[in-house]
Amino acid sequence: MAQVNPPPFTKYQVRPGAYYDSVMLMQLQKSLAELPGVTDAGVMMATPANCELLTASGFDLTTILAKPDDLLIIVKAESDAVASDAIGQVDNLLNQRQKISTGVARPRSLRGGVDRLPAAQWVLISVPGRYAADIADQALDLNRHVFLYSDHVALSDEIRLKQRARAKGLLVMGPDCGTAIINGVGLGFANRIRRGNVGIVAASGTGLQAVATEVHRLGGGVSQAFGTGGRDLKADVEGVTALQALNWLAKDETTTVILLISKPPDAAVAGRLLRAAQTCGKPVVVNFIGYPPPGRRLGNLTFGSGLSDTAEMAVSLAQAKRLRSLEPERSLSGYVRGLFSGGTLAYEMLLGLEPVLAPLYSNLAATGDRSLVDSALTPAHTIVDLGEDEFTQGRLHPMMDNDLRLRRLRQELADPEVDLILLDVVLGEGAHPDPAAELAPTVDDAIQAGKRVVAVVVGTEDDPQNLGNQIERLTAAGAVVFPTVSGVLGYVYDRLGPVEYDYPHVSFDTSGLAAINVGLESFYESILIQGGTAVHVEWRPPAGGDERLMGILAKMKKQQAMAQQ
Amino acid sequence: MAQVNPPPFTKYQVRPGAYYDSVMLMQLQKSLAELPGVTDAGVMMATPANCELLTASGFDLTTILAKPDDLLIIVKAESDAVASDAIGQVDNLLNQRQKISTGVARPRSLRGGVDRLPAAQWVLISVPGRYAADIADQALDLNRHVFLYSDHVALSDEIRLKQRARAKGLLVMGPDCGTAIINGVGLGFANRIRRGNVGIVAASGTGLQAVATEVHRLGGGVSQAFGTGGRDLKADVEGVTALQALNWLAKDETTTVILLISKPPDAAVAGRLLRAAQTCGKPVVVNFIGYPPPGRRLGNLTFGSGLSDTAEMAVSLAQAKRLRSLEPERSLSGYVRGLFSGGTLAYEMLLGLEPVLAPLYSNLAATGDRSLVDSALTPAHTIVDLGEDEFTQGRLHPMMDNDLRLRRLRQELADPEVDLILLDVVLGEGAHPDPAAELAPTVDDAIQAGKRVVAVVVGTEDDPQNLGNQIERLTAAGAVVFPTVSGVLGYVYDRLGPVEYDYPHVSFDTSGLAAINVGLESFYESILIQGGTAVHVEWRPPAGGDERLMGILAKMKKQQAMAQQ
Repeated sequence: MAQVNPPPFTKYQVRPGAYYDSVMLMQLQKSLAELPGVTDAGVMMATPANCELLTASGFDLTTILAKPDDLLIIVKAESDAVASDAIGQVDNLLNQRQKISTGVARPRSLRGGVDRLPAAQWVLISVPGRYAADIADQALDLNRHVFLYSDHVALSDEIRLKQRARAKGLLVMGPDCGTAIINGVGLGFANRIRRGNVGIVAASGTGLQAVATEVHRLGGGVSQAFGTGGRDLKADVEGVTALQALNWLAKDETTTVILLISKPPDAAVAGRLLRAAQTCGKPVVVNFIGYPPPGRRLGNLTFGSGLSDTAEMAVSLAQAKRLRSLEPERSLSGYVRGLFSGGTLAYEMLLGLEPVLAPLYSNLAATGDRSLVDSALTPAHTIVDLGEDEFTQGRLHPMMDNDLRLRRLRQELADPEVDLILLDVVLGEGAHPDPAAELAPTVDDAIQAGKRVVAVVVGTEDDPQNLGNQIERLTAAGAVVFPTVSGVLGYVYDRLGPVEYDYPHVSFDTSGLAAINVGLESFYESILIQGGTAVHVEWRPPAGGDERLMGILAKMKKQQAMAQQ
Repeated sequence: MAQVNPPPFTKYQVRPGAYYDSVMLMQLQKSLAELPGVTDAGVMMATPANCELLTASGFDLTTILAKPDDLLIIVKAESDAVASDAIGQVDNLLNQRQKISTGVARPRSLRGGVDRLPAAQWVLISVPGRYAADIADQALDLNRHVFLYSDHVALSDEIRLKQRARAKGLLVMGPDCGTAIINGVGLGFANRIRRGNVGIVAASGTGLQAVATEVHRLGGGVSQAFGTGGRDLKADVEGVTALQALNWLAKDETTTVILLISKPPDAAVAGRLLRAAQTCGKPVVVNFIGYPPPGRRLGNLTFGSGLSDTAEMAVSLAQAKRLRSLEPERSLSGYVRGLFSGGTLAYEMLLGLEPVLAPLYSNLAATGDRSLVDSALTPAHTIVDLGEDEFTQGRLHPMMDNDLRLRRLRQELADPEVDLILLDVVLGEGAHPDPAAELAPTVDDAIQAGKRVVAVVVGTEDDPQNLGNQIERLTAAGAVVFPTVSGVLGYVYDRLGPVEYDYPHVSFDTSGLAAINVGLESFYESILIQGGTAVHVEWRPPAGGDERLMGILAKMKKQQAMAQQ
């Protein structure tokens, strides 16, 4: 089959630094492409990605000079005349569009919008990124919560905005926050979700949409769904919005289960959030996508694998009767030291504690890099695998010979900084015939010294050591015994203790939704359709988007502010 | 309170290069510590770790000169005389012990053991690491499967042994393999576990013990449990033993569910193993501890979070009636290309496919490092998030504007190397009013071009686009539609296609157990207690453990072998 070459009749126009609403650009492109004789059209800012796309679609851009800030309009047609004619109609088409969208007189500034709808507690911002932070600052000045859809907002702006908001008891969801559901009304991209008792905090837009629709599909419902923007759980941003949202949901009477999702967070921020979740008094289902879960159910936390599994867990918890007391346990008041004979038990413990205890050291290579320089020492929180090669050269494995462990135990019980000692006792053929008998007296000494001792005992009732007797002996000495590492982790998670959180409480009316919209008009329309109240601001970039002029204006504003001081 | 200083009456003895069974050393230490007037005793090879332990226990070793290969015997006592006397009794105590353990005449070599018990198909090796590989080689020469408990075996020896074993249809479990259960008899450290239909493959000793006891505790049982040694899933070892074991269990009639556990494996080995698991025809529960699970249930694979959760899943699958057909689907015959509008959907898809598709590229940062140099191109398998900043500058988000995606779709359907195209369609307020109408014609073109198209549609029946209509439209065009990413991943997992596997099949009698034991006598005894048959080899290191003499012997052996050629 012979290949048909695309017709070579191409015309284009470059409009330097022009600002148009991007919905308008999409519609212009469609209108051009639909003209008789036009085979393809492109209307987009001339960014490298957009130019590549046009080239891949068969446009020859080699002779075109356009900067990323320029609007490029390009048309391919059956004849030279048709192409020229199409380009000639651009202004006509743009004017038609503009007339449609400016039929009603509207406020031209955020302040004007607030004057029109003083009840509005929320400001939606979806203007191009370089203008967005300024409008968000204005919204905070006016004591409004912010839903910041815009991307391309500088990280430093995000940090500043969130710290300002936190101090005022306000939320900044975003930047790059695609979706939220407040009082049953979706903001941005939002599915129609049944109202219910699952509260959502999500540092991920489509993640939020995916879990919310899945909760709905499984018969559950959502109380509130807060977006935070994808960078909220990065180290520099410190999870401010996620923590605010989590605390809000913890206090909300409608919410009985909380669902927390994020792409892989910063380790310290994840730890802080998990500790806040642990003390929130409600079951929390966590999915840090792509982050190795420290277990399945640890205390009141459940770790989901994948978005649909996470939604499933939340719905089943929301439907379940509360099975366990969520009363706070006596918090950790010192270090945790684990002395293990089983490598994988130690490793699983390490992995489970790593997100919530810091600094945590170990002689096992794990996800962190806190390796023990000297295995004989236990700095801060430590998990030691006494079955590692370094300890078994020239002596028996600690599952057979308790001597090493007993010596280490005595070290720990003498350390005033230690609160909790973790042990494993592995029974079975080949192992020591009666480990509990050897360990119990020293466990008892540890209890007398004011330590807590928790042991995982791995064995069956048919094992030669007699599982029941082993547990009884350890329990009598004062140890708490679990059959699995997961049980021990749950014990520790229940005792993490609250994280410091002294921000002003975030508050908003929980009936109805009133908002000011600055940016994409479709977001305004969708609020009205959903029964909310909204005002759309007829926003235009300052100085018509001219960078040089904007710089001069900003300078003048600064000088004015300084003169007023 | 005044601190009581330890008594300074310490005596010691250093025995250079002495070899003793480590059980004997433990018993000697206990006997010394129990002598009247003795307050503490240490009997161990003078490795750095052991010396540190003794120092931490209050022994002053500063004046003692001992090499790691030397046996150090040290005693602390109430008086100088008691300490001296204790040291004086060492040989006496050692002779008593040796008499006890040499009461019966026993073979002194592996070959002698095999002559005594020709039915033995298994050889257990627990001698010190530097002697272990040689005995394992002898076992393979004699066509016996190997259970290699010893650690400190060189990686190069492990690779060589496993490749030899594989070629002969033999298993080498280990080195550093702590446990296994063959025909109901535990080898090494082994719990008494109910027999049942869960087969276990574990690159982790206490991991195997923990899941096996938990399966037992939950009412389930184990058919066979194979250990592989902790390094089996490292890149250099290539998971040889794990693959052999998995294939054995796949063919075993008793086994209905397979449980696969390992500390974080090499990515390529993990992929190979998952593909083998996917085509094994049975449900497989996987726990690569500390490895982000690609999902919860993907095809016949279930990913557990933590050991107890993994055991729970295995038991519930073993009890469940088979819910889904495990008939093989039409395998992938080309590349997979994902064109996404939702960042988190793309990310979850990437994360799910990363373990099983290679090479897999993306413009999203993920666990791998296959980032797209040029987002306009899709090399090999690729997942592109078209909602990333690079694509949304100066144009609408692809959830609102389908133009970009349609252009990219056309690129893919024209590529002869593509088999499967993955899409997401996100509905809801703010999104495009009818994405299926715009996408369907091009999906149809793709189907006509011989591609498969699978879409995840995120939305509810209350969304303005009409979920049912959207699905119908896409399905009519030939796409397969799922409500979750996990559903799409399951579709892909079901079509991974078999991995190349042409090793000779491993076989062994599945009734009873007969073994030769070389090393720790307790392992021999525990086989007898469990009803197995065994012979214990009275092993002593060649040349009495003298390194220099061993070197000379090895040289002579080599020269002899060369002379015979």
